[in-house]
Amino acid sequence: MADALIRSKKPAASTRTPAGGAPTAPHSAQEAAEPRIDVDAVTDMLLGTWGRTRREAREMIKDPAFWQISGQTVAEHRERVLGQLRLLVENGASARAYPVEYGGLGDNGANIAGFEELVLADPSLQIKAGVQWGLFGAAIQQLGTKRHHDAWLRDAADLTLPGAFAMTETGHGSDVAAIGTTATYDPDTEEFVIHTPFRGAWKDYLGNAALHGKAATVFAQLITGGVNYGVHCFFVPIRDENGEFLPGVGGEDDGVKGGLNGIDNGRLHFDRVRVPRFNLLDRYGQVDASGAYSSDIPSPGRRFFTMLGALVQGRISLDGASTTAAALALKIAVTYGNQRRQFDSGAGTPEVVLLDYGKHQRRLIPRIATAYAQAFAHDEFLRKFDGVFSGRTDTPAEREDLETLAASLKPLSTWNALETIQDCREACGGSGFLAENRLTGLHHDLDVYATFEGDNNILLQLVGKRLLGDFAKQFTGADAGTLARYAVGQTAGKLFHGAGLRRLGQTVADLGSTARSVELGLREDAQHELLAGRVQQMVADLAARLRPASKLSPAAAAALFNENQAELIEAARAHGELLQWEAFTDALHAVTDGGTLRVLTWLRDLFGLSLIEKHLAWYLIAGRLSAQRAASVTRYIDRLCARLRPHAQDLVDAWGFAPEHVRAPIASGAERARQEEAAAYYAALAASGEAPVSEKSLHKKR
Amino acid sequence: MADALIRSKKPAASTRTPAGGAPTAPHSAQEAAEPRIDVDAVTDMLLGTWGRTRREAREMIKDPAFWQISGQTVAEHRERVLGQLRLLVENGASARAYPVEYGGLGDNGANIAGFEELVLADPSLQIKAGVQWGLFGAAIQQLGTKRHHDAWLRDAADLTLPGAFAMTETGHGSDVAAIGTTATYDPDTEEFVIHTPFRGAWKDYLGNAALHGKAATVFAQLITGGVNYGVHCFFVPIRDENGEFLPGVGGEDDGVKGGLNGIDNGRLHFDRVRVPRFNLLDRYGQVDASGAYSSDIPSPGRRFFTMLGALVQGRISLDGASTTAAALALKIAVTYGNQRRQFDSGAGTPEVVLLDYGKHQRRLIPRIATAYAQAFAHDEFLRKFDGVFSGRTDTPAEREDLETLAASLKPLSTWNALETIQDCREACGGSGFLAENRLTGLHHDLDVYATFEGDNNILLQLVGKRLLGDFAKQFTGADAGTLARYAVGQTAGKLFHGAGLRRLGQTVADLGSTARSVELGLREDAQHELLAGRVQQMVADLAARLRPASKLSPAAAAALFNENQAELIEAARAHGELLQWEAFTDALHAVTDGGTLRVLTWLRDLFGLSLIEKHLAWYLIAGRLSAQRAASVTRYIDRLCARLRPHAQDLVDAWGFAPEHVRAPIASGAERARQEEAAAYYAALAASGEAPVSEKSLHKKR
Repeated sequence: MADALIRSKKPAASTRTPAGGAPTAPHSAQEAAEPRIDVDAVTDMLLGTWGRTRREAREMIKDPAFWQISGQTVAEHRERVLGQLRLLVENGASARAYPVEYGGLGDNGANIAGFEELVLADPSLQIKAGVQWGLFGAAIQQLGTKRHHDAWLRDAADLTLPGAFAMTETGHGSDVAAIGTTATYDPDTEEFVIHTPFRGAWKDYLGNAALHGKAATVFAQLITGGVNYGVHCFFVPIRDENGEFLPGVGGEDDGVKGGLNGIDNGRLHFDRVRVPRFNLLDRYGQVDASGAYSSDIPSPGRRFFTMLGALVQGRISLDGASTTAAALALKIAVTYGNQRRQFDSGAGTPEVVLLDYGKHQRRLIPRIATAYAQAFAHDEFLRKFDGVFSGRTDTPAEREDLETLAASLKPLSTWNALETIQDCREACGGSGFLAENRLTGLHHDLDVYATFEGDNNILLQLVGKRLLGDFAKQFTGADAGTLARYAVGQTAGKLFHGAGLRRLGQTVADLGSTARSVELGLREDAQHELLAGRVQQMVADLAARLRPASKLSPAAAAALFNENQAELIEAARAHGELLQWEAFTDALHAVTDGGTLRVLTWLRDLFGLSLIEKHLAWYLIAGRLSAQRAASVTRYIDRLCARLRPHAQDLVDAWGFAPEHVRAPIASGAERARQEEAAAYYAALAASGEAPVSEKSLHKKR
Repeated sequence: MADALIRSKKPAASTRTPAGGAPTAPHSAQEAAEPRIDVDAVTDMLLGTWGRTRREAREMIKDPAFWQISGQTVAEHRERVLGQLRLLVENGASARAYPVEYGGLGDNGANIAGFEELVLADPSLQIKAGVQWGLFGAAIQQLGTKRHHDAWLRDAADLTLPGAFAMTETGHGSDVAAIGTTATYDPDTEEFVIHTPFRGAWKDYLGNAALHGKAATVFAQLITGGVNYGVHCFFVPIRDENGEFLPGVGGEDDGVKGGLNGIDNGRLHFDRVRVPRFNLLDRYGQVDASGAYSSDIPSPGRRFFTMLGALVQGRISLDGASTTAAALALKIAVTYGNQRRQFDSGAGTPEVVLLDYGKHQRRLIPRIATAYAQAFAHDEFLRKFDGVFSGRTDTPAEREDLETLAASLKPLSTWNALETIQDCREACGGSGFLAENRLTGLHHDLDVYATFEGDNNILLQLVGKRLLGDFAKQFTGADAGTLARYAVGQTAGKLFHGAGLRRLGQTVADLGSTARSVELGLREDAQHELLAGRVQQMVADLAARLRPASKLSPAAAAALFNENQAELIEAARAHGELLQWEAFTDALHAVTDGGTLRVLTWLRDLFGLSLIEKHLAWYLIAGRLSAQRAASVTRYIDRLCARLRPHAQDLVDAWGFAPEHVRAPIASGAERARQEEAAAYYAALAASGEAPVSEKSLHKKR
């Protein structure tokens, strides 16, 4: 499966752009003899299946017209990003997912890959483009049928028709099924009446709603013949040619936000606004002229989730963009940490480079490992998505797996991006707080990724329920052997691969002839056993604890579930971590270059062991690690950090960011130049014989 | 000792301001019979020793002129905050620490307490005020002598003389001893020549430097007679009446920052700028007309740390302001979490209030406990500071303890504020991302608190070294009993109290007649034993591992230290956590009201157990907790969260914030009103007989 990873195209010329223009020098003579990664080959791995599209997008956004400008007013920033959307159209980068006949390329995977790279230019651009083409346009494409495509898709694609995606309400966020907006069918006029019955049902936090949207895809309870058929989506014009609200439509600006201020988020409400029956995006549910409702999906619940699932690409692109943003932050902080010096070591040597400090390594290097794991998991995720949405592998089961993957990976990567960016910010000290060095802006903009497109905790809870459901379906009364296979094959591998047992553990076990015995006990197969075993046991434990629920009153069952909610979410997180670890390991198995394999194996080990260390108490309590072995996990991580330290720059350079993508002065080599100037000053002073002596040396003389 | 906590003045009228104007109702009939806290009494405890000053400051900042306005440009925000500083002068709130003859009150504790409250109005105001009076003015006060006070202190106090505190350089942050700026004495003219020899020695990140500063207290290497006497501070005029740089002075604007944009941070450099000999702030080191240097403190190292220590109040105020900001975030998120409903429970009941979800409780309630612990620790810290700086307890040992306290507590509280605010932001979903709800702004502004006034990790490393030093001094070759006393008495208690063994464990052990046995095993005395024992063992282990250093080469010793750096920092963190726990426990021991004592004891237990849970793997590996007892920690925390849930609103209301301090629409009761409107709509619809039936019910009928 993983060989798809090496399918990506290798460019003729190297795209490697080391920090400050200087090559990454070995850290010591010993290191010069050690393995190094093939940076260009790793770039290919990281860019993944749609590497060519990613390179196109990166080339495009080298144009400063795409870059975020710190300190712009909200109004200026909004206009700038609107202009950038027009540039995307001009560059043919707006609608790769749409069918060719509507100006697209019909390439779902490339579409997401291209959008994700926009985060390097300005996250507001990424998200506003996502609103226009990935939500508003995608609702028309995915929830509508050909006549809707004919009517609106081309205009959406070329931004003739900017639109809002009106799902969330002030009173209901992640619980979309409970929204209050109604769309009541009037057979007399063959119209739907879109109505906001109370303040909590105002549509809220909608990009393009405050200013630029001319229409909206409005989610509302479809009522016909006195029956509520649940949430459906309607195309509703909202503004006239002059940008004034149409009759019955009103709204408000959401004002300043904690980030993403290039997007005009706002509120919308509807006072009995009538739209033709035609405007129901009716791929999954139709209303005929008489008002009779029909759908291919009889279950209201399944129909609802199918409609929502058609919009999964939002979550996918957040997973990818968060990974890229975390990688950018690491590129900045590692480059600076490799140049900045602070404090002498007390050994009479020059001041120490930050990344030579044990604590600094511990802060940053495991984060590199996580970003790599996320990138590999994301590429598998994106291929799964492309398979389903291209129709090649479009089955209900595949769609359900895709949903679970999205709900597993998006929370982990969005949270990890915030933590990584924050650590990088702090690792750069006061310089990290200057807007020009980008770390604070990335944090501000990505903050909301943790709660939009589905609150992270709610998504993980969905995953947890799926894990419990799979468990209940297959393993009621099962023996221990069955459970073990469940852990190894079902919970994780199946989602990516749709197949049974995974065979891991042989490929690299013979690498480390000098490795200590304890390390051998924490190699690939042991890591997998520990990570997969934890998922399995947590799910089994939860299932056992929740089993009495079926015999309880609904209220008592709900209370029992609630008592176990935090742990269910933890189990889902463990499952997502396992997926990421497996994707990293699959990627490793496709590597042929010896140095690359060795260094990336250390990095994957660091990822796996960091996960195990994070949950060390669990492993100890569960009796899966002895106290002695647990203590060795931390020591092994320390050794891996030290081993990877000379490769840190290579590993962040391998993301292939050009200076136009990094743009942070502290990662430009300026710091190194300043230090060289200072060193030259002191050397000249010493040579002049006019350097003041220190008071201490004076004391000694006395 | 802790009885000082109940000394604070109780106002005539209640200052309690429940969320949305409604009293906090019991959550169920059972709860109505349960103990409640006396909210007003707890407010007194939290406001602490200088409660009257805090109330004065809070009253003052009810004036909207002090409030941050989201979305202002950097230029507008800077002018607004400058104007607010003038308002502070008008309100007599600028210089409580200065002697009466210079317009102050001579009250150091009150000064810090009053400044800290400004964070509720705008953190930029708090920090710019801190720059002007707590750094620039305090340098004149603390490092200068009477003639310097006569010359500049009154003008600094009333803002006639806005100034920058020019310590940090682009090339050197936390390592102040290594700065490059020189001040070379010229006996011919009796002047110091202030000079910036290279770009890295530019002063950087200085508030008041970009625009408003007329002078600066510049730290530079004092060179006289060919000898460098180390870093001293000089008063240097930088701008003329028209705001133009004086000859030889130059600078740059630091531009947009990740927060605190109400402050005009900038850079300064000096090209052989001459200032009179008088301008050396010479309390700790003097140069006579001939150029001869003298100081009461012969050791250059101790002199340097004494000078820096004179400016400890910056760190103190960050500890307090971070705690207040975390409390404000919790007030907002808990109030919203108590009103906002999302998803029904599946039991046919109304949608569930967020704070009734197990995960939501787990996110927010332990954070309340931490904020309480920080507040109590901060008040003890502030009293210690006031004792030293008033001269009552001003000894070198007390000053050293104060430094260690600052380095212990500031990192914990500033990091905790960021984590708490972020959790609160996410707990409020999309609403939390709107600037009007303040959580994102608080995060942006407080971000840099983690690295300025001493990088948190570097401060903790200082604490770690102090712990190691104390250990080495007193316990080389000591037996286990001595070590145990060290843990209980020395590392923590001594810093606050300057006295030996602490007696804990009896007061509340008899409270819980129905408590389960496992809880009895995790009560106060057990918590203290676990927390203090961890500090002791970590320090002892580190000492053992570092012992070979004395026999190694300087380079090898530095490498050995570096290998253990991350763990040394962890030991220091454990020590700070113990300090906070002890302060909380001391505060508890002064409580007389039964309900308050009971609830706050749960809260303290939650704090202690959360710390133990965070480090659970350590306890298991060290053999200090069995697997069974470790597992019970998490279950006990779950129970404590459930027990405290009905008190959550009381506990955040007890911070005593008025609506003018909270200002977040989501914490105003608006959400509750919206839900009541929606419920009324659905009730009326049902009563009308015109409500649509659900599709599901239709399926059932068929």
